[in-house]
Amino acid sequence: MGSTQQMTGTDQQASCGQADELSRLVEKQDWDHVLALLSQLRKEDEAGLLCDMDRDRVREVMLHLSTEELANLVAVMPQEESCRFCEAIDPLTLADVLDETNPDFAAHILRGLPEETVKQVLPQLKDSGVVEPLLQYKRGTAGEHMTTSFVALAHDMTVDDGINAIRAQKPRRDTVDTLYVVDARGRLRGVMTLRQLVLSRPGARLRTIMERKLLSVTPDTPDRECAQLMQRYNISSLPVVDTTGHMVGVITLRQLLHVTTEQATADMYHMVGLSETERISRPLRVSVKRRLPWLIMSLGFALASGLVVSAFETTVAAMVALASFLPLISAMGTNYAQQVATLFVRGLATGELRQTLVKRAVTREAMLGIINGVAVSALSALVALVWMRSLLLAQIFGLAMFLTLGLSALLGALTPLLLKKLHADPALGSSVLLATATDITGFVFLLGLAAAMLKWTGAS
Amino acid sequence: MGSTQQMTGTDQQASCGQADELSRLVEKQDWDHVLALLSQLRKEDEAGLLCDMDRDRVREVMLHLSTEELANLVAVMPQEESCRFCEAIDPLTLADVLDETNPDFAAHILRGLPEETVKQVLPQLKDSGVVEPLLQYKRGTAGEHMTTSFVALAHDMTVDDGINAIRAQKPRRDTVDTLYVVDARGRLRGVMTLRQLVLSRPGARLRTIMERKLLSVTPDTPDRECAQLMQRYNISSLPVVDTTGHMVGVITLRQLLHVTTEQATADMYHMVGLSETERISRPLRVSVKRRLPWLIMSLGFALASGLVVSAFETTVAAMVALASFLPLISAMGTNYAQQVATLFVRGLATGELRQTLVKRAVTREAMLGIINGVAVSALSALVALVWMRSLLLAQIFGLAMFLTLGLSALLGALTPLLLKKLHADPALGSSVLLATATDITGFVFLLGLAAAMLKWTGAS
Repeated sequence: MGSTQQMTGTDQQASCGQADELSRLVEKQDWDHVLALLSQLRKEDEAGLLCDMDRDRVREVMLHLSTEELANLVAVMPQEESCRFCEAIDPLTLADVLDETNPDFAAHILRGLPEETVKQVLPQLKDSGVVEPLLQYKRGTAGEHMTTSFVALAHDMTVDDGINAIRAQKPRRDTVDTLYVVDARGRLRGVMTLRQLVLSRPGARLRTIMERKLLSVTPDTPDRECAQLMQRYNISSLPVVDTTGHMVGVITLRQLLHVTTEQATADMYHMVGLSETERISRPLRVSVKRRLPWLIMSLGFALASGLVVSAFETTVAAMVALASFLPLISAMGTNYAQQVATLFVRGLATGELRQTLVKRAVTREAMLGIINGVAVSALSALVALVWMRSLLLAQIFGLAMFLTLGLSALLGALTPLLLKKLHADPALGSSVLLATATDITGFVFLLGLAAAMLKWTGAS
Repeated sequence: MGSTQQMTGTDQQASCGQADELSRLVEKQDWDHVLALLSQLRKEDEAGLLCDMDRDRVREVMLHLSTEELANLVAVMPQEESCRFCEAIDPLTLADVLDETNPDFAAHILRGLPEETVKQVLPQLKDSGVVEPLLQYKRGTAGEHMTTSFVALAHDMTVDDGINAIRAQKPRRDTVDTLYVVDARGRLRGVMTLRQLVLSRPGARLRTIMERKLLSVTPDTPDRECAQLMQRYNISSLPVVDTTGHMVGVITLRQLLHVTTEQATADMYHMVGLSETERISRPLRVSVKRRLPWLIMSLGFALASGLVVSAFETTVAAMVALASFLPLISAMGTNYAQQVATLFVRGLATGELRQTLVKRAVTREAMLGIINGVAVSALSALVALVWMRSLLLAQIFGLAMFLTLGLSALLGALTPLLLKKLHADPALGSSVLLATATDITGFVFLLGLAAAMLKWTGAS
C-alpha cells in the first residue's frame, strides 16, 4: 500500500519557490522539466501558477498541454481567471477544450468571452445545440449558474431500479447527491437525496419515499435570491423549472458560494465607488480607465461642499477658528452615515433586513442618532470650549455636531433603501454620495449657525 | 396522490400578514389557533416569526411546544438568534431540548450562552461527556464548526459491506455524502463519496477505490483557512484530524457558508468601525454602548486634523479661500485611500492577494496613485483657477492634490498589510485611521504649501 499524501494547514498551497522555478524553466524552454513540475502539483495549484504568469509565457506552456489537460485546468480556475486564460487559446483549440467539459461549463466560459470569439467558437462545439440556449440566460440569474446535468428518476421506479438507473447513467458530478423524481409527463413531482435512496427498503416505490414539499426556482430567479433561499432553508441544491413544470437544470450551493463571496466583494466595492470587476491583478490601463472617471465625479461632488464653505467666506474671515472645525464636522458626519449605511446595505444583501423590519430599523437608527448625537455634541462643545476658550464657538460647534449626526443617521439609513426602491444596487457609491451630502449639510449647519450668531451678537 | 406544494420566487417567505395574525392570536391567548397557524409553516418560517416577536410573548408560545418541536426550531435558526432564543428557555428544559439534537449542535448553542447557564445545563445533558470536550475548541477554528457525526468505514470492507454498514448506522445528516476510510488502527487513510460507493462494483474493496490524496485540517485550523481550502480545491467537506492521525470530525461547506457570509459582514463592519456583532435588530442600549466609545475615539482622531488647520490659522486668515479647499482635499484623499484599502482588505480575505503578489500589488497601486494623481491634480488646478481666479491658489491646490492622492494610495495599500503583519484584522477601523491620516497629511500639504508660497511671494 502506497503512502497517503496528507497535507495540513498552510503548506497546502503552491509556494513562491515553485513559481520562480517554473518561470526559470519556461524561460529556458525546458519543456520536459516544466511538464514534470506541473504534474507534481494539484490541478488547482497548477492553475494558480499559470494564472500568475505572464500572458506570453502561458501561451508557450499551453502549446505543450493536451486539450484534456487544458480543460481540467480551466475547470478549477475562478471565472475571471478562466475567461482571461481562454482568451489566450485560439478559437479552434478552445472549441476542443470546451468539448471536454460539459455544456453548462462551456456556456459559463463563453459568457465571459468577447462576442467575436463566441461567434467563432460556438459553431465548432459538438454540443452547440445545447450550449447556445444556455447563453440566452441573463447574468446574475439561476439560468446562468445552473447545471444541466442532473438525475431525474420516474416516480413509479423502485429503490433498486433507481440505484441501477443511476449506475447506468454513471454521472460524473456531485449533482447526483440530490435526485429529482418526475411523473409520466416529465414534470417535477418530488425530491430525495442519494442517501435516502440508499437507506430505503430496496422494493419501495420512489413516489412513496420522495419529499413532495419542494422548493424550486425559474431560470430568471436572481442568483442572490437563490442563495438566500438555500441559506434560509439549509438546502444544498435547488431545481430550476420552466413555466410548464419541466426541470431544466439544478443550481447548487457550491456554485453559489462564489456568488455570495462575489456579492460581498461587490457590496464593499460599490460602497467606495469601485467597479466590481476591479482586481489587484488587473492591467494598469484598465484600472485607470475605470477609476479616473469616478475620481473626477468625486471631485465634482467635493466641489459642492467647497462651494458651501466659499458662500460663507465672510463668516470664516470674521472667525477664522471656524476653519479648524470643518474637518471635525466632515469626519464625524461622513463616518456616522457610513456606519449606518453599511448596516443597511449588508442587512439588505444577507436578507436579514426583511420587509417587515425596515420601519423599525429606520426608527431605531434615528433614535440612536439622537442619543449618540447628544453625547458627542456635549463632548464636542466641551472640546471647543477648552480648545478655543470661546463660549460662542462651543455653542455653535456643539449644536452643529448634534444636527449633523442626527441627519447623518437618517441619510445613512434612507440612502440604501431609496436606491433599492429605485431598483439600483443599495451599495452603489453610497459612501461618496453620503460623504458629500453630510459634508454639505454639516457645513451649512456649522457656518450658517455661526453667521446667524455673529449677526445676532453684532446686532445686540 | 396528494398535490405537490411547489413554491417559487418571493412568495416563499412568511408574510407580514402572518406575523400580525400570530401576534394577535398570542395576545388573545388563543393557543389552539396559534399552534394551528405555526404548523402550516415551514420550520424556517416558523422560527423567523418567533425570532421577530417580543421576548415575553415567545416565552408564552414556547410553553405550548414540545421539546422536540423546540429542538427543530432552534436547529434552523441563525446562530445569533438561536442563542437568544435558548436564553429564554429555563435550564432544565433547555437540557431536554439539546438532548434532541446532536452533540456538536449542543456545543454550538452552549458556546453562545452565558457561562452560568452553561454550568447549569451541561451536567443535565445525556451526552455531556461528548459535548464538554467540544466546548474546549476556540471560536473561529475548525473545532468550533465541525460535526462529530460522520461515517468511517474500514479499508478492507467491500462495497456491499460498506452500503450495509451505512444502512445499519442510519445516519440522519448530509455528512454521509462523503465517507472516510480508516485502517485497522483507526487512522484516516482515504476518502470517497457516497456516489462513488454506489457506482462501484459491489465486490470491490474500499481501499482499492478510495482517494488517497486527501486534504485534512486540525481542530485548531482557522475557519477562514478551511473555507479558502474548500473553495480553492472545490470540495464540500474536510476531515478534521488530531495529531495522532485519528479523525475527530468533519467540517462541511454548508457550515462554512455562514462563515464566509459572516466574514464578509465583519470585513465591511470593521472598515467603518462597527462591531461585528452589531445588527439592526439589537436593543438600543447595546448599540449605544458599542458605538459611542468609538464615536468619541473618532472625535479624538478628527480633532488631530482640526489642530493641523488651527496651526496654520494665520495662513488661513491671510487667504480665507483656502478654507474652501479643505473639504475637497479631505474628501478626495479619504476616498481614494478607502478604495485602495478595500481592494487590499478584500484581497486578503478571499485569499486572492497571495503572498507572491503583495509586492506587485503595492507597486501597482503606487503607480496608479501617480497616474490618477497627475490627471486629477491638473483638473483640480484648472477648477481652482476658474473658481478663484488665482494662479497662486491653482498651483497650491493642484500640487497639494497630487501629493495627497499619491500618499493616500500608499497609505491605503500599506495599512491593511501592516495590520495583518501585526496579527490584527486588516479591516479593523482602517477607514477611520486612514481618513485621519489622509486628512492630516492633505491639510499639511495644502496649508504648508500655501504658507511657504505666501512667505515667498511676500518676501519677493
